[in-house]
Order: sequence, then C-alpha cells, then structure tokens
Amino acid sequence: MQFASRLDNVETSAIRELFKLLGKPGIISFAGGFPDSAMFDVEGLKDASQKALTEEAGGALQYGATEGYEPLRNQLSSFMKTKGVDPSGLIVTTGSQQALDLLGKTMISPGDKVIVEGPTFLATIQCFRLYGAQLISAPIDANGVKTDELEKLIAEHKPKFVYLIPTFGNPSGAMLSLERRKKVLELAVKYQTLIVEDDPYGDLYFGEAPPPSIMSLSKDVPGSRELLAHCGSLSKVLSPGLRIGWMIAPPELLAKATMCKQFSDAHTSTFAQATAAQYLKSGRMPGTLAHVREVYGQRAQAMGAALTRELGDAVSFTQPNGGLFFWARLTGANGKLADANELAKRAIEKLVAFVPGAPFFAEKPDVATLRLSFATADIEKIEEGVKRLGQAL
Amino acid sequence: MQFASRLDNVETSAIRELFKLLGKPGIISFAGGFPDSAMFDVEGLKDASQKALTEEAGGALQYGATEGYEPLRNQLSSFMKTKGVDPSGLIVTTGSQQALDLLGKTMISPGDKVIVEGPTFLATIQCFRLYGAQLISAPIDANGVKTDELEKLIAEHKPKFVYLIPTFGNPSGAMLSLERRKKVLELAVKYQTLIVEDDPYGDLYFGEAPPPSIMSLSKDVPGSRELLAHCGSLSKVLSPGLRIGWMIAPPELLAKATMCKQFSDAHTSTFAQATAAQYLKSGRMPGTLAHVREVYGQRAQAMGAALTRELGDAVSFTQPNGGLFFWARLTGANGKLADANELAKRAIEKLVAFVPGAPFFAEKPDVATLRLSFATADIEKIEEGVKRLGQAL
Repeated sequence: MQFASRLDNVETSAIRELFKLLGKPGIISFAGGFPDSAMFDVEGLKDASQKALTEEAGGALQYGATEGYEPLRNQLSSFMKTKGVDPSGLIVTTGSQQALDLLGKTMISPGDKVIVEGPTFLATIQCFRLYGAQLISAPIDANGVKTDELEKLIAEHKPKFVYLIPTFGNPSGAMLSLERRKKVLELAVKYQTLIVEDDPYGDLYFGEAPPPSIMSLSKDVPGSRELLAHCGSLSKVLSPGLRIGWMIAPPELLAKATMCKQFSDAHTSTFAQATAAQYLKSGRMPGTLAHVREVYGQRAQAMGAALTRELGDAVSFTQPNGGLFFWARLTGANGKLADANELAKRAIEKLVAFVPGAPFFAEKPDVATLRLSFATADIEKIEEGVKRLGQAL
Repeated sequence: MQFASRLDNVETSAIRELFKLLGKPGIISFAGGFPDSAMFDVEGLKDASQKALTEEAGGALQYGATEGYEPLRNQLSSFMKTKGVDPSGLIVTTGSQQALDLLGKTMISPGDKVIVEGPTFLATIQCFRLYGAQLISAPIDANGVKTDELEKLIAEHKPKFVYLIPTFGNPSGAMLSLERRKKVLELAVKYQTLIVEDDPYGDLYFGEAPPPSIMSLSKDVPGSRELLAHCGSLSKVLSPGLRIGWMIAPPELLAKATMCKQFSDAHTSTFAQATAAQYLKSGRMPGTLAHVREVYGQRAQAMGAALTRELGDAVSFTQPNGGLFFWARLTGANGKLADANELAKRAIEKLVAFVPGAPFFAEKPDVATLRLSFATADIEKIEEGVKRLGQAL
C-alpha cells in the first residue's frame, strides 16, 4: 500500500517506545503529560452533563455549527474577557491539538518555514511537519524564547508563522517575561509575521499570576492584533476527556480554519460542548482552578527540593511557577552522566520514568535535557521517585 | 495573509448560501442532512452518561488512547460482528467525517486520483480535495454504482482508492445490489485497488435488511479484506452530537491513520466515548433502531406518495428503502422546469426548501437533480411541503 508522501516527514517517536515500558509494576512515572485524574471535578461535571441533557437535549445531541456551540462560545468568550482578551470570533476546537492541526491545514504549504521554540511541544512538531512545514528552532532560557535570536531567525527565514507556548511551556516550564512578550508583538508588526500563542497552561500558576497573554497585550501594540492567533484549552484545568479547546485569530484566518474544520470533524462534540458550557455557567471553575493550583504547586515545590537534595549539581533547572513540568539539564558535573537517553534507560531499571528532552527539539537536539512531570504523583512518590533518579545517575 | 495552497482546491459551497435562507418563518425544510432530534433517546443517554461518570470517571475525563476508548472499541466490535464483519483493529473516530479526513491525510498525495460516485457526499468531495485529490466520478443508478463503468475508470485512472456509500447513499438514497457488491470486491482484487465503504446509513432500513456490507462479503472473496476500509457512525441512528464514528481497515493503514489522528485531535472525546459505550452496553440500541426505522419509513412512504401525487411525471425517482433521502430528477415533461437550482429559488419563495443536486457531483453536474430529506418533517409537513414544491414547479 502506498501512503501519502506527507507521512515521510514524520517518524514514530522514540517516546512511544518508552511509554510501553511504563506498565512495569511499581514504577513511579514523571513521564506523562497529563493532569491528575484525582483532580477532576466529577460531581460538577455530572451535574453539568445532566443539565445539558435536560435543558438543551436537542442542541447537545444534534449536529451543531462548525464554529462551536453558541452557549459554550459565549462562556469561553466571557472567560477570555476576564483575562483581558478580546475574544471576537472565537471558535471551539476538538482540544487545542485540533487548533494546531487547523493552523497547519489552513496556513502551511509544503516547504513553508515555521519557527518554534527549541524545545517545543512534540505533537506540534509532528502536526506541522505532516503539512510539510520546515521547522526552525529558536533558543529559549528560563524567561522563554530569546527575542533577539528570534528576530534574527524571522528576518532570515521569513516564516509563515511563529509558534510559541509563552506560559509554562511544554516541555520547558518557562515563562516568557513581560518585556519579551511586548518584544514579540513588536516583531509581529515589524516583520508582518503571524504569531501563534498556545496557552493551555496559563491558568495553572502557583504563586503570582504570570504576565498577561500576548493576545491580551496586543491592545497596546497597534497593528499586532491582526497578526495573532491564540489557542486555549480546558484539558489541563478541567478535563482532557472533554476535548474542548478554542482559537481566537484574525477573522479571515478563522473563516478558513472553520472551513477546514468542517471537513475534519464537522464540529466538536456538542454533547461535550454543552456539558462544558453548563459547567462554566455553574460557577465552579474558580474553585476548581484554586484547587489544582494549590495541589500542583505543592508537588512542584516537593520535586524542586528533592531534585536539589538528591541530584545536587548533577542537574540544573529553574523552579517552574506553573504548569506541569520541570525542564532539567544534566551538567555532567564530577564525571556524572550527561546523556538523558542513557539515564532514561537506567531509570526504568530503578523503576522511575521521565522523558528525555532530545525529541522536543525540531533542530539541534540537546541530549543532556529531560522533562519531569510533577502532576500525577503525590509528594511521597515524588520524593521516592527523585531518590531513585539519583541512584540511577 | 497568505493561506496554504491546498485551500485553492475547494470553494465555499453554494449550499451554505441556501442554508442561510432556512431561517425564514414558516419554511418547511427538506434540505437538512441530519436526523430528527425528536428521535434521540435522551433518557437512555442521560443514564449512560451518569454511569460513565460514576463507574469510570477517570477514563471518561482523562486523555485516552488515540485508537479509542477500550470499552467502546469492544462494544463497536461486537456490534460489527453481529453484522458479519471481522472488526479487527477497529479505531474510533470523531464522527465518520474524521475517518474520511484521516483517509485523505494518510493516503492522498497532491495529484492522486480518487474515484467517487456521481453524486456523492459533499463533505467527502471537499475533504479529499483539501488533500489535493483529483476526483473522478463514477455514474450510478438505483442499484448504486455501475460496476462496468467503475471497472473502466479504475483501469484507466489507477486511483489511490475508490470511495463508495453503497447503502442508502447521501445524496442518492441508492442501494448497491448484492451482485454489484461482489463485483466491487472482485475489482478490488483484480486491480489491487483500495475500496472505502462509507456506511452511516446501513442500519436505517425500512423493510427488508439491505445486502451485507462489502466488508462483510469480503470473507468470500480471497485477498479482498486487505483492500478494504469500512467507516461506520452512530450519528444517524443514535446522536450526531456525540461525534462517534469508527474505521476498520488493513493494519498498516490503521496504524498510519492512528498516527495522523494523534496530531489531529489526540483522541475522540473519552467522555462521549464512555457514554456511547455505556449506551451500547445498556441494550437499548435495538429498540432505538426499531423506532427510527419505523418513523423514517413512514415519512419516506408519505414523501414518495406526495411526490407522485403533486409532481407527477415532472420528476422521476426511486423510492428509497432506507436512509434519510430521496434523490429525484426533474424530467422537464410537458415543458416543466428541469433546472433544480432555479426550482430551489422558486421553492424558497413558496416556503419549502431542498438541496439542488449539482454540487454533489465531483464532475459533470446534473442540474436536473435534487435531494429531499424526509427525516425531520412529520407526515403532515411532508405533504404540505411537497404540495408547495408542486406549486413552485
């Protein structure tokens, strides 16, 4: 059977192989990219789904508009307004993964260049490559993408767009500083380049709130709003199983993306949309957010302390202020191992798992890096797991 | 903003413009392609969703496998087995629209040829064209695609695959005869051509059951099973809002399609999947099927009788034995109108709507054809609507 040529651009990830080993009994996993199921507001969602099927069964079970179910679009628009964003034209997507897919389908012709962070979300790399994108990797530090380097890359490559996860990025955990956010907006206008802000983690902060989103800051930079797309998601804060994401973008782009969505899945499950709308309407979201922030914050604290205690100067990392991830780098100090792929193998033997960082780079992988999720293990497991990691090292 | 070149292959459909007129007060619409909301088993789905959130909240709300939620895959596999199909490897898709999208993404390189029926499902045409397919149209009659003509087209064009809706197709309502189904399987083997069987309407029969699906008949034609893909859906028989479809195909194709799905929407809503699984497990499906068959069967009968009574020899059509649609042709007898686009305009003035047939043809549109859905209007409305249609003509 001869498959489409676009499949030649992607390969099954090494991470998939790793995940097969996670079923080992007794393993402590920091490898996942998902929230803790124990955090789901099951009662709230039960009420919401019953209300949806009682008050609006026709809408919740019938075909719906490709742009999204009106009550949910209204709820999400209100939610975005509270965060200072003008939500005009917001469309609902099947998770924010579909927003990425629609951006790829709508924008990328084979051979087009797209700038992403190095490292960036693995499924973004594969998603854009399937549409034939040539990915350029912009370096980051703890304050997010280095905007000076980004400017050089934009000037050199004239990309179709720049894709960023500015707030508690996956896998970097980094938070783009306010100053750099403004700089990104200036670059958008200066080079007339579309910027995609993927923001699934922005509400998952532990202490002080992060700077406003790039989309929110666009108010202050004339001409930037029409060069911005913003993707949001309920997956990390409420439930991934609903598959509710959204996208805000210039009207012409949203219209084309909606047409593409029509032929991708017609529309996002109206049943899930009506349930999410009822949930947001119920007023439980602020309590749910407060709860997940508290629990994940404590786990992040515990993991940072354990890493310092157990691994010492063998790793360097920045304590994340939100999200689900630590991004660490093996320093090779005192002749210790500096290859995270090798460490991952040894760690599995010690019954602890994490994801090596190399696959997250679209270009020039740094094999000394690794990603550790603190989301799904409790504090005791985190401490035990990091101890095992120290032994593996 | 410069969009991807693939968007040049599709245009916003004329039908969308028509649908904007459907809000007119007092209009009777035969234009929709959806089931009747009054037919939804709301109580059964309420119970199913509560059970899903009570018994398996973790699974229903968390990320899930891209291939589908295991309990639903098992239920759907059992369902397919009762219809004589070997369901090995079945994957769940976000409606069967996504199965089409994944087939396009997985199989179609720009310029590849794909044979479809003339007429065929509009969203299939657009979906495959977005991946750069060149569509070839195979003629049909009331017994489905004309296999002699199909063979000539396969031999001439060597298509990437052939896409058929063999049972009560949209828009044709036609039912591929048993003899032709076997012929299609022989053609698959003879020309080593992949056949895609899209079957959202197969369970919606009014009298005698239709012949077994092509997939089911493949048992008797050695070598044909590995050249077949089969798409199913709960949309027409249970609820479109769940967005639950599925695909069965050769293992290599399913593996590639699953990889593509991973970067399209990660997975279909586990919440919707768990609800559908509980519903199928509850044993209510046979009753629901019996009910929709009865109601739609009566409406089809009423529409056929009304068309004969009100339009006489000005239209020709075959009474459908299942599905949601009449496919009719204006004969132009006695100098009557033979242009369905013009009739659609006049009909809207008389407060009745239908969809002209021309857009359903990937090639050589027949402007005398039209599609009438009998699914959403009750018998009284059907009779009144067809009367208005007669006046418009």
